Order: sequence, then structure tokens, then C-alpha cells
Amino acid sequence: MRIACWQAACEAPGLPRFLERLRAVARRAADAGAELLITPEMSVGGYPLRPATLAEAAGPLDGPQCEAVSAIAREFGIALVHGWPESDGPDVYNSARLVDPHGTTLASYRKAHLFGDVDRTWFAPGADGVVQASLGGLTVGLLICYDVEFPEAVRAHALAGTDLLVVPTALMQPWEFIPRTIVPARAFESQLFIAYTNWIGERHGLRFSGLTTVAAPDGTRTVLEAPREDLLITEVDPAVITAARKATPYLTDRRPDLYTP
Amino acid sequence: MRIACWQAACEAPGLPRFLERLRAVARRAADAGAELLITPEMSVGGYPLRPATLAEAAGPLDGPQCEAVSAIAREFGIALVHGWPESDGPDVYNSARLVDPHGTTLASYRKAHLFGDVDRTWFAPGADGVVQASLGGLTVGLLICYDVEFPEAVRAHALAGTDLLVVPTALMQPWEFIPRTIVPARAFESQLFIAYTNWIGERHGLRFSGLTTVAAPDGTRTVLEAPREDLLITEVDPAVITAARKATPYLTDRRPDLYTP
Repeated sequence: MRIACWQAACEAPGLPRFLERLRAVARRAADAGAELLITPEMSVGGYPLRPATLAEAAGPLDGPQCEAVSAIAREFGIALVHGWPESDGPDVYNSARLVDPHGTTLASYRKAHLFGDVDRTWFAPGADGVVQASLGGLTVGLLICYDVEFPEAVRAHALAGTDLLVVPTALMQPWEFIPRTIVPARAFESQLFIAYTNWIGERHGLRFSGLTTVAAPDGTRTVLEAPREDLLITEVDPAVITAARKATPYLTDRRPDLYTP
Repeated sequence: MRIACWQAACEAPGLPRFLERLRAVARRAADAGAELLITPEMSVGGYPLRPATLAEAAGPLDGPQCEAVSAIAREFGIALVHGWPESDGPDVYNSARLVDPHGTTLASYRKAHLFGDVDRTWFAPGADGVVQASLGGLTVGLLICYDVEFPEAVRAHALAGTDLLVVPTALMQPWEFIPRTIVPARAFESQLFIAYTNWIGERHGLRFSGLTTVAAPDGTRTVLEAPREDLLITEVDPAVITAARKATPYLTDRRPDLYTP
């Protein structure tokens, strides 16, 4: 399956402008043959959140914000992952949603590991665990940013059969160690593909690092090295997963009896 | 605490010759102010094992092979980690032992994750889990080679308070991804020091990769890049652990309720 990761430049927020940009990128990704377009953490609304963006971007699952994204998926016949502040009663979650090329919700996930005050000021922690859906013959899983830094969270996906782990992120300086080392380690040790899709540029005093990375289970990776908006288009080949799991059988060589005191 | 990792060249096996070399290295490490000298996997006997080396190198914990190493620790007043084929009734384990500067055994660990036929032909799997000892104000833990590639095994050490994880290894080509990416990731994600000490050169058709690495919890590392025998001498500073755990509180931000189905 060909996928496209949109390393989006930080711009002043505003839903209409975001949707206009997303529409242009979806067209470009579909023209390039991608079946799935992945956008950064909190792509609807921007990260970090502010009161004005919360008011405009927050909504329930399959509310108007989600529907606006679905319309773009439908228009270009491309599956799409987006983030948004998901409201549910009095709570707001840092959520990501996968829609199919018809704009139908396949999966929705609430960030479980909140990162410092920048998350905790705004969001309730999710309690979803492993969230997956089937797309183009692959089992696709969802995590968000800080989640992927916990090896246990990725391992749980691998043991549940995830082939492609989609990770919208908002990684800021000076944490480049994460895309450079942690994300490739996760893909290798848990034997799945990881599509880690980041913002680039500055917003509200935070400098986002780019370095959008697709890491493969054989230790290889493709990275957007240039610090600018770009689209990373690459293939997720199940044969690579099969070969890697044969070469390093981590999932069957585990000794779970030894890992808890 | 200053430590020394001996990246040992593969030589024809033979216990007397090995002890002679170890003695020279222990002197050099002690002269450099190191309090702990770490040697590669199965340093007594060589890796991979062969019938002749098994006959000469195998023995019980605190048997003659262990005692010969203890005598060197005592002579130079330096703690020491060595590997050897540990016999216990009908079984042989791929073991590592930590002795203090008086030559007394502080801890002994049996490799739990056996790597392919090269291990399984010779060894029974250990069932020790976390093995630790106190040395120079640090909690020192032991894993061996393939063990460290499992994030769960390192996490168990971190949660049990290990500050310095000593990992004798026999890493061969083409697995350089392990010292380059996995070992630094483990140190960062589990917030401890890892001293990964490898062979260099060829033995029985296997080419060992060197790249002996001490990885710190802040993402920094020191590496022996040159493909030759050498001694890596570096500091393990508890203040680095404290600062890293404050900067990235992985150990307290975990959500263990979400990691099992």
C-alpha cells in the first residue's frame, strides 16, 4: 500500500484555511497513487491548543469537523488520518480518526499518554488501548505522539496484529532523538511499519521538528530531512514484515513470564 | 563511577591465554581509575562455543573458572563482569557474573532470551528475570546480548531500580542496528545507563561487530568506532539519571493498564 505523510507547516489556525490546504494535499497524494494520507497530531485546530482553536475545532466523533474531513476523503477517494479535539460530554480528548476513501470512520483513538502541561492543560487521557482497523489488506493501528515513546504501547499493537502503526505527532525541539532513534527502534523491535507524521515550523513559542519518518521492521527508514512542508510518499509492503519477523523473531522469542516482578 | 568496557579481539580459545590477556586489561583499567571492568559475552571460553572450549571453560558458579577471574579482580582491586558456560547438573547456561574488587560474587545471571541455533545448540534458557547488585553506590543489573533487544527486559530493570545495566554481548554482522539504534533507545526509554560490551573480529565463521557502546539516559553515547581491540573508559554519573528522569518521566507516565489485551 502506498501512503503519504503530510509534514504540514504551522500556520495561523482557522478551520476553513486548514480544510483548503488539506484538500490540495489530498489531491496531490491521490494523484501520486497514495491510498492513505496521514496528517500531524491535532491537524484540525493546530497544536498546541488555544481557546479560540478549541471553540472552532472541537466536536464529537463524526461531528461537523470530522464530516468536513470525510468530504475531502470522499472527493479524492483516499483514506485519511486526522487529529482533532474530540469533545465528549464535559471532556475533551486529543484524538485521531481514520476514515476510508468513502469518508466513513474506520477507527478513532484518544491519546493515552499525555505529554506534560501542554497536553494536560487541555485534554483528558484516553483509555482505549489498541485501536485498529483493516485497510487495503493491512491492519492499521493508531497512536499519537508521546504514546509511541512507550515500547509497551507499540508491543501491544504488534501482538494484536498491527502491520502499519499510524502516529500523528507534534514533536518539538529538542526531542529529535525520538524520530532519529526511538521510532526506528520501535519499528524494528516490534516488527511493524510506523508512519510518524509531524508538523514543521513554530506555533505559540514551540518549534516543531519535522523529520517525518516512515520506519520499517527491517531497520530501514525514509525521512523528510529538509525543514519545510512536504509530502513523504512511500510503500508499506507486507512482504517486508514477513521477512523481518523471520529474521528477528522477537514476537515469539519474548519471555513474558520474566518481565513482571 | 568510572567503568571500562573491554572490546576484546577474538583469539584462539584457551583459558590460560585468556586469563593472561584479562590480567593485562584489568591492570590497564585499574590504572585508568575504573572501578568496574566489563568483558564480552562468554568471555571465558569464547563465543560461539565449541566442544573443546566447553570442556575447558564450563564450570559451576564459583568453580575454578570463576575463581581464576576473582583472583584477577582481587589482584587489581577492580570489580569485574565476565561470561562463562555455567554448568548446573546436566544443564549448561550462558551466564554472566559480577564480582567485587575482593573477588567475591555479587550477582550471577543466566541468559534468558537465547539467540537462534548458535545459543540453543548449547544452552538451556535462564529464568532469572531481574538480577541486580549494589556497587559503588549504583544498582547494577545484568543482561546478556539478545536479552537487551527486548524492551520489556530492560523496563523490568528500570522499574526495579537498576542504574547501570551491564550487557556483555557477542553481536555479529549484519546486526549493527542493535548498538547503533536499539541500545541507545533502551537507555533513553528506560532511563538508565547501558554498557554494551562486544567482541571484535572473526571466530568460527562469525564476524563480530565491535561498536561497544555506553548509552546514557539522556540520549548521549560513547562508542568504540574503530574495528579493533580497545578499552572504552567512561563515567556513569547518577546525576545524569536524575536529570533525564525529570526531563522525560517515562517511568511514571506509563499506563500499564492499557498494555495487555
